[in-house]
Amino acid sequence: MPRADGMRLRPGGEFERIRHILAAAPGLGPDVVIPAGDDAAVLKGGQWTISVDMSVEEVHFRRDWLTGAEIAFRAVMAAASDMAAMAADPRAVLASIALPEGVDEFGSELGEGLGEACSFLGVALVGGDLTRSPGPVVIDIVVLGRVDDPVSRAGAKAGDEVWVTGVLGGSAAAVKLLDAGDTLSPELRDVFARPLPRIAEALWLREHAELRGLIDLSDGLGGDAGHLAAASGLGIKLDWASVPVDPLSEKALGPRVARDLAVTGGEDYELCCVLPAGEGDALAPEFRVKFGLPLTRVGWVHEGSGVRVVDLDGREHAARGYDHFRGGQHP
Amino acid sequence: MPRADGMRLRPGGEFERIRHILAAAPGLGPDVVIPAGDDAAVLKGGQWTISVDMSVEEVHFRRDWLTGAEIAFRAVMAAASDMAAMAADPRAVLASIALPEGVDEFGSELGEGLGEACSFLGVALVGGDLTRSPGPVVIDIVVLGRVDDPVSRAGAKAGDEVWVTGVLGGSAAAVKLLDAGDTLSPELRDVFARPLPRIAEALWLREHAELRGLIDLSDGLGGDAGHLAAASGLGIKLDWASVPVDPLSEKALGPRVARDLAVTGGEDYELCCVLPAGEGDALAPEFRVKFGLPLTRVGWVHEGSGVRVVDLDGREHAARGYDHFRGGQHP
Repeated sequence: MPRADGMRLRPGGEFERIRHILAAAPGLGPDVVIPAGDDAAVLKGGQWTISVDMSVEEVHFRRDWLTGAEIAFRAVMAAASDMAAMAADPRAVLASIALPEGVDEFGSELGEGLGEACSFLGVALVGGDLTRSPGPVVIDIVVLGRVDDPVSRAGAKAGDEVWVTGVLGGSAAAVKLLDAGDTLSPELRDVFARPLPRIAEALWLREHAELRGLIDLSDGLGGDAGHLAAASGLGIKLDWASVPVDPLSEKALGPRVARDLAVTGGEDYELCCVLPAGEGDALAPEFRVKFGLPLTRVGWVHEGSGVRVVDLDGREHAARGYDHFRGGQHP
Repeated sequence: MPRADGMRLRPGGEFERIRHILAAAPGLGPDVVIPAGDDAAVLKGGQWTISVDMSVEEVHFRRDWLTGAEIAFRAVMAAASDMAAMAADPRAVLASIALPEGVDEFGSELGEGLGEACSFLGVALVGGDLTRSPGPVVIDIVVLGRVDDPVSRAGAKAGDEVWVTGVLGGSAAAVKLLDAGDTLSPELRDVFARPLPRIAEALWLREHAELRGLIDLSDGLGGDAGHLAAASGLGIKLDWASVPVDPLSEKALGPRVARDLAVTGGEDYELCCVLPAGEGDALAPEFRVKFGLPLTRVGWVHEGSGVRVVDLDGREHAARGYDHFRGGQHP
């Protein structure tokens, strides 16, 4: 889904109308360097960058799928991933939590997971809000980071290449299995429950490459590549066969479904970047040694618009979006 | 209720346990000047200050009481009031919103109110998140401000005086009437629906007075004076008879109830400050001319702890907290 004025837009027709109204609000003050619409806003003085990410029970998580500590850990990491997407270094977190009555133990677990996530990231928990909910648990995580030279989504040129870190589709595979009532292998559960934002990787890439666009994969490769394409006013083609598929997903769901999920599934929190042609080939071996992760070319930038996936037979079809709850595609 | 690590704590026993767990999270990084626990965190470089405030349907607002535009306006102003409490100047807002299905019109109104509030404050809407809710509408507002010399809650000395801006209890009176199914006068509805944070007033007071403690009245005079007292390790006595009562509340509910609500009721978003003895008397006339608002001495600081209210007969009783939804006291 397209984003406007920093508002993350999830599926749903009526949201379009609201988005337009929100987009009409004043969007760029004198203190804002990079305005809304990218992964995070960058503020003058510091430079501080800020992003916010709301997780709602039954929309983004289910209490019978993960522990409270895992849900909170995941929420913080998802928010911190927006810092990676700017090549920023997260420094502080604020957490707003709404809890229904009678979930004492779960609330304590949330607190533990929040603390664990902040410790893991080496950031300070500097504030928040704790309130009652008449229904779902809601967790809204604000992450502040420092960045000298933020990498935006825009800047791609025709002929550039699109690269991704790590392997894709594991999180969507886990959601698909859980949704079907299946049990996850401990390894796949870990992929789903403990995503790690690629912060060190983003900082390294910024140092070693000419990043012409950077985003984290929260909405799925198809969707997020669309954000990169739109930000530069160009088109992207993704090579279906070269997308790196999570082997745990492949083992659980077979190669065909796993590959589809690698392209369409969200919440992998890997990085997707645009590099000048040839640059990724030179970097990938060192990247793999340093981080133990593949850096894989998955597509290229061309004159045009939108994202299309090129399949094994050379046929092109439109990339589909991702429904965060269902773990599947929506039209 | 006490606050810890910037977490705003609303009524509810189990919250205490969660608070302690949250308080154990790392709370003060090298980039944080004033840590959590005050109205807002202050970050190095800028200096930026940040606060977050979550409003949940059926807990903080009801859709049959206010329009969507009013609810959003109120949520932004409540969050901006935390900037006033630091004598900071709000500059940017992020808004996370969770919306149930089928509230298209209401969502549009929220967007309008958000835009109106940002325009009113002269701040930029720099980001946010828009997502689905399976139940209540949830609005989480992040406000960023600039501050050269933040005024914290701490710094009171025994013998200092406690002063408040404006008149109190109007918002609680409106909630009480709405809860009873009564209709509000247009004036009282306006007090409730369109609170204005005292930002210019806070900046002026910082310029003209030796502020030894500053807070905004969100939890009610009794509760918020308690935060001031605790931050300085001292006690505060409030003079029941001198608390400035909102005349609209008095007209609707009579003098006795209105005065009780002025002491216990929340969400007035007036300022409460600690000044050296005598200083407020010198400032109040100029303050009234400049802002059209009274500046009233309501109590004093003493060795000891907690907040006690001194009634007309000189008897003291403990100040009570405020339940944001009920508009009344809780034990």
